[in-house]
Order: sequence, then C-alpha cells, then structure tokens
Amino acid sequence: MTFELPASLGVRGDRKMAEDIISRIWGKKGVFTCTIANTLTSTIPGVSEAGDTPELTLYTGPADAEYLVMGKVTCMKGIPINPGGIPTPATLTKAALNLSRMPYFIINGGSKIIPNIPCIEVGGEAGDKVNTGHTLRNVLKSFEYGKILGAQLADAHDFVVISESCAGGTTTALAVLLAMGTITENLVSSSSPKNPKQLKWDLVMEGFKNAGISIGDYADDPLKAIECFGDPMMPVNLGIILGAAKKVPVIIGGGTQMAPLMAAAVKLDPSVVGNIMQGTTRWLLSDPNSSMVKIMEHISDRIPMVYINMDYSASPYEGLQAYEWGFIKEGVGCGGSSVAAVISSAGEIDCGKLLDEVHRLYRIVMQLD
Amino acid sequence: MTFELPASLGVRGDRKMAEDIISRIWGKKGVFTCTIANTLTSTIPGVSEAGDTPELTLYTGPADAEYLVMGKVTCMKGIPINPGGIPTPATLTKAALNLSRMPYFIINGGSKIIPNIPCIEVGGEAGDKVNTGHTLRNVLKSFEYGKILGAQLADAHDFVVISESCAGGTTTALAVLLAMGTITENLVSSSSPKNPKQLKWDLVMEGFKNAGISIGDYADDPLKAIECFGDPMMPVNLGIILGAAKKVPVIIGGGTQMAPLMAAAVKLDPSVVGNIMQGTTRWLLSDPNSSMVKIMEHISDRIPMVYINMDYSASPYEGLQAYEWGFIKEGVGCGGSSVAAVISSAGEIDCGKLLDEVHRLYRIVMQLD
Repeated sequence: MTFELPASLGVRGDRKMAEDIISRIWGKKGVFTCTIANTLTSTIPGVSEAGDTPELTLYTGPADAEYLVMGKVTCMKGIPINPGGIPTPATLTKAALNLSRMPYFIINGGSKIIPNIPCIEVGGEAGDKVNTGHTLRNVLKSFEYGKILGAQLADAHDFVVISESCAGGTTTALAVLLAMGTITENLVSSSSPKNPKQLKWDLVMEGFKNAGISIGDYADDPLKAIECFGDPMMPVNLGIILGAAKKVPVIIGGGTQMAPLMAAAVKLDPSVVGNIMQGTTRWLLSDPNSSMVKIMEHISDRIPMVYINMDYSASPYEGLQAYEWGFIKEGVGCGGSSVAAVISSAGEIDCGKLLDEVHRLYRIVMQLD
Repeated sequence: MTFELPASLGVRGDRKMAEDIISRIWGKKGVFTCTIANTLTSTIPGVSEAGDTPELTLYTGPADAEYLVMGKVTCMKGIPINPGGIPTPATLTKAALNLSRMPYFIINGGSKIIPNIPCIEVGGEAGDKVNTGHTLRNVLKSFEYGKILGAQLADAHDFVVISESCAGGTTTALAVLLAMGTITENLVSSSSPKNPKQLKWDLVMEGFKNAGISIGDYADDPLKAIECFGDPMMPVNLGIILGAAKKVPVIIGGGTQMAPLMAAAVKLDPSVVGNIMQGTTRWLLSDPNSSMVKIMEHISDRIPMVYINMDYSASPYEGLQAYEWGFIKEGVGCGGSSVAAVISSAGEIDCGKLLDEVHRLYRIVMQLD
C-alpha cells in the first residue's frame, strides 16, 4: 500500500523518501521551534529587506517571536514588514500553529534585541558582519545545547520542526555554503524579488579575504565555517537536527538559509539522512532568482523538499498577493509549520483552511476590522 | 456516572473537585515544567538539607535540572543528595517522565548556578536571604513572563504541571504565607525529618523586622510579599498558574513550598479555583512535622491535594527506604509528575511501574550495576 500525499503538499527531490517520512508521522504530534538570531550583516544597506529599514532588521526576529507567542509585538511598533507594507510570513506560521495546536517554543540563538517573552536560552550571542570573516562566538556551546534540546524534544514528540527568523540569513548561508564548498556559485534566495546577488557575493568574498580562506577550504569543518561566516541560528539548529534525528523525523523549516545546516548535518552525521526533510513553501521553490533544488543536489539526493502549496494570488489583500510577486517567500518557519500542520492533522488542515486563518490574522494585524 | 480514581492516586480535601478535574484530563496530554531557583537563605547553616552542605544547596536546582534533561549532572560531581546519601527526588520525577513521555522543560526562575542545558529564561535572578526582608528583584517581569508562558503552554497541551527545585524554599514559603496572613503558625515542611522549625521562624521574624512589617500586613499584596520574602521560583510559577488555568487544568506539583502560590493565585484571580489542584506525595501529606492540609484550610476548601501513593518501604535500597523515615518527601515535582503520569496514561502507569523505573534509575545513579 502506498501513501498518498494530499494536494496541499508538494515535493521536489526524493518523493519516495518524502512519503516514507511523512507516512511515519501522519496524524502524530510534533513540536515547533523558531530560533531568532542576528548578525550585523543585515544592517549593511541593501543586504536585507526583512525589515522596513536596515536598522529595523535587528528587530525582525524578536518581533516575529513576540507575534507568534502573544499575537502582538511589544519590542517595536507594529509587526515586522518588508518595505512596501508586506507583512512578515509569521502570519502564516501563526495560522498553522493556531489551527494545529502544535506546541511551539522560541529559541534565542543570539538576538541583538531580546524579545519580551520567555525564550529557550542556548548560550548564543548576536554575530558580527559576514565580511569580517569571523562572525560568531560560543559556537560549540550552542551546538552542544542544541543537541541536548533536540534529544529532549524528540523524547516527548513524534517529530520536531526547526526554523529561523534571522535577517541577512541568506548572505551568511551563502558564505557557509561556499566555505564548505557545497556550492561554488550564488544560488541563495532573498526576501526581495530583486535579490542583491552581487552585493552578497562581494561581502562574502571580503569575509573570505579577511579570514584568509578560499571556497571549499572548510569542507571538512562545518563548525569552523559557521564560526567564521555563519549566524547564531545555525549552531543550535544544527545541534537540534543531530540530537533529534537519531530518534524522530526532523522537518527543517525554511528556505535556502537552512541549506548550510543540512550540508553540515550530512557531513557530521550521515545517518540523519532518511529522517530529515525540508519543509518550505511553493514560493521559495519556484523563485527564479535562487535555486534550492540545485543547492540540494550538492548536499544529498535523499533529503526531500516538501512544500506547502499556498497560493495568495486570489487573496483580496495586496500585502499577501505580493508573495506571488516574489516578495518574502519564506521565513519564521512558515513553510515548515504549515507542512507540519497538514501532517499532524492527517490532512484535516489544508491550504484553504490555512488561507482563511491567514486572512483572519491579517485583518487583525493590519487593523482592518 | 462517577469517575473512579485508581489506587495509585489518593486525595485529601475536596474529593469531588479532584475527580472532576482529573476526569477532564484523563488520558490526555500534559506538559511538565520544573523551575529552578535560589535564595541565599539555603546557605544559612541548618536551614536546608537539600544538598550535602549549605554551599552545595546552591547546586541542587541546576543539578536536578541537568539530571532530568540529560540523565547525568555536569555542574557538580554526582547527583544531588541529602546528608546520609539519600538521592534527590528527581529520580522519581525522571521515572514519571520516562514512562509517560510527557514533554518537560526547565525554567530558570533565578538560579545562582546556571545549569549546562537549555533553559527557558524569564528574567529572574537568584534572591537574597529571607532575613534581609527584601529577597527579590524583577518580580513583575518574571510574573508577566509566567503569564505569557502559561498561556503558551495551555494553547498546545491539555494540562500544565508546574514544580520547583529551590533549596531553602520552605523557609521562604513560610515567610510569604505569614506576610500574607494565610497562616499564623509554622506549618511548613522540610526535607529533613528534624524540621528546624525554630530557626526558620526566627529568620522569618528577623526579615519582618528588617522590612518593618507584621504578620498579615501584605494580605492584599501577594506580589509585594513575594518580592520581600519569596524566592525566584514563585513569581514565574504564579504567573503560569494564572495564565494557564484560564484555559486548562493546572497541577501544582510540590509540597508546602507551593502553598504561597496557591494563596496568591486565589487572591489575584479567584476564578482559578475549579481548574487547579496540588499534585504531591503520600510522604508529604503524612508528615507529622508539617501540615499541608491545615495550610490548605486557610487557602481554599476547593483546591484538592492529590497524591501519588508511592511506598518505598519494601525497596531493597536504604537511600529510598529513607523516604519512609521522613527524609525528602517532595521536590523537583516528583509528586506532580507522578500524578500526571498516572492521569495522562489513563492509569496505565501505576505506582508499581514507577517503582520499577525508580529502581532502574537508582541503580544507574548510584552506580550499582
């Protein structure tokens, strides 16, 4: 008997593996985590649009976290928006959490601004700019804490979802992927339809120069690559993958920002393959300016990319229609949480129900009612 | 049709209320939290036996937390023991968590020593000695974070269990109960069979003198009583009760240390009654040197005390038999987690299975195998 995926979920890559993993956790109980973090990379003008201004990008993670937990933001005014008034993807994440009643926890991977909510601390600190060539401290501590937390969550849940809210994270992801030699060209995404690819490349190359390394030099030392060029959501999430995937499936929620974690996990413990899959969005996988699929070809052909088939084109709200024009695409685990909601509800939650709940939440956050 | 409790659970107080609450969560999924905290009260010689020496009492909370999460302790040598080699009640808590697969989280209410594991941070700090008359800072912040966390946990679970590991906590509990005027005599317990009642009383009275107050002066201001005489597990746990009990039942795990929380919760929001119960041990309720039952008479006659019917008298290990001689009795949510394990498993887990698992864990921690 074969397991058939519902229309709300799509797969790129190894479909058989996706069906195998999903069939094992279908209708079961997961736990969702979102790790907030910063490097100062996002404050370099032009790098990140995850925030209305470069300075406000430092508030995006903590504000997303407050919104998920409290349904409102207290560390800044309003919810995080991209320039043009496009609301944070946390609206979709919150819809998925509301409908599924999945337990959720915020991890402070290392955020410059600490949100006004309880967070799980893992000893991380906000990082420096990627072009310094040495972004992070305390990598080993956060990595070890991640392993402990991953095992702890896997003890009591049938699957674990990880995710991130870290502005500038595609640039640090690019740097780590290049340092590991996973890719040799710029294939990462952006929350803007005008992906500033040259700027990102130049910053990473400046970082490599400052660190005195070339592409691929840290192929065998992913933790060193993360310490020099990564962001603080990476070590803890890498640890969670390794700690949890020994016991239960792990859904790696997010876009190309999560690629270095998958590359590093496969390098450090190849046995995770078979128990991990990416959980993302249709928007991310259909982005013409990046290619998660191509990146994955260099990581493993046995880590499926499972996406939620959300389509905002018929939404009455321009701020949501913008997702169809290439804005946002991913973040705050909106893809992973939605995929998890479909799975844990055994298909009872679908894209239609998610869209209704996103609309309800959108009207509240945009004060339209 | 009436709901019948299994033999593994007993009730003091309002049996009908206990049956009502338990019947609503029978076979359902809870979440367990343990809040670690300190005041320097436990370092006053003679006050606390929750640690081999007065100084080591500061390590008891973090070591208990590490043991629950990792099954081993790294912040000190060995697991917490009372003088005489009696192991921490965390052995029973861990047995309950292992058997039930209940999710569990450590909250850092304010611990002098930070354990080497991920903790949920709530902005608390370790407190001063109770005889100073001003033990805590940041009470309001931890209280608010507790309310947020309580609501967050209740969103995704059918019931919430709170607990503590805070050495010297019966002394701070006595002080808060007297400041609120809940009781006017020393009815709190001790982890030693020789409860140092006079010493505790004298320290509390010295604290009252330094604060310039008399018994009952803070009857209408529980948060002020906690700020002056409480410990840092109190504000966050009080917040969790108020935040969670609006939505789901809360099991208040622990002995007389939890009495001030129940008194304060009833004062701040009487509507919690009907959705809260104490979860404790037979040992605590049968202690001749304290009286949880009498304390509860002054708080509410509608908060049932539900206990796990564990009996270590036939155990082959002296360190466990000592529980029958009046040592330990409660702590680290051993009662609450065991009660919760029976409930969430719909009675499948019973005292016999818990005892077998405690023996297995005891042999590991005492290196007997």
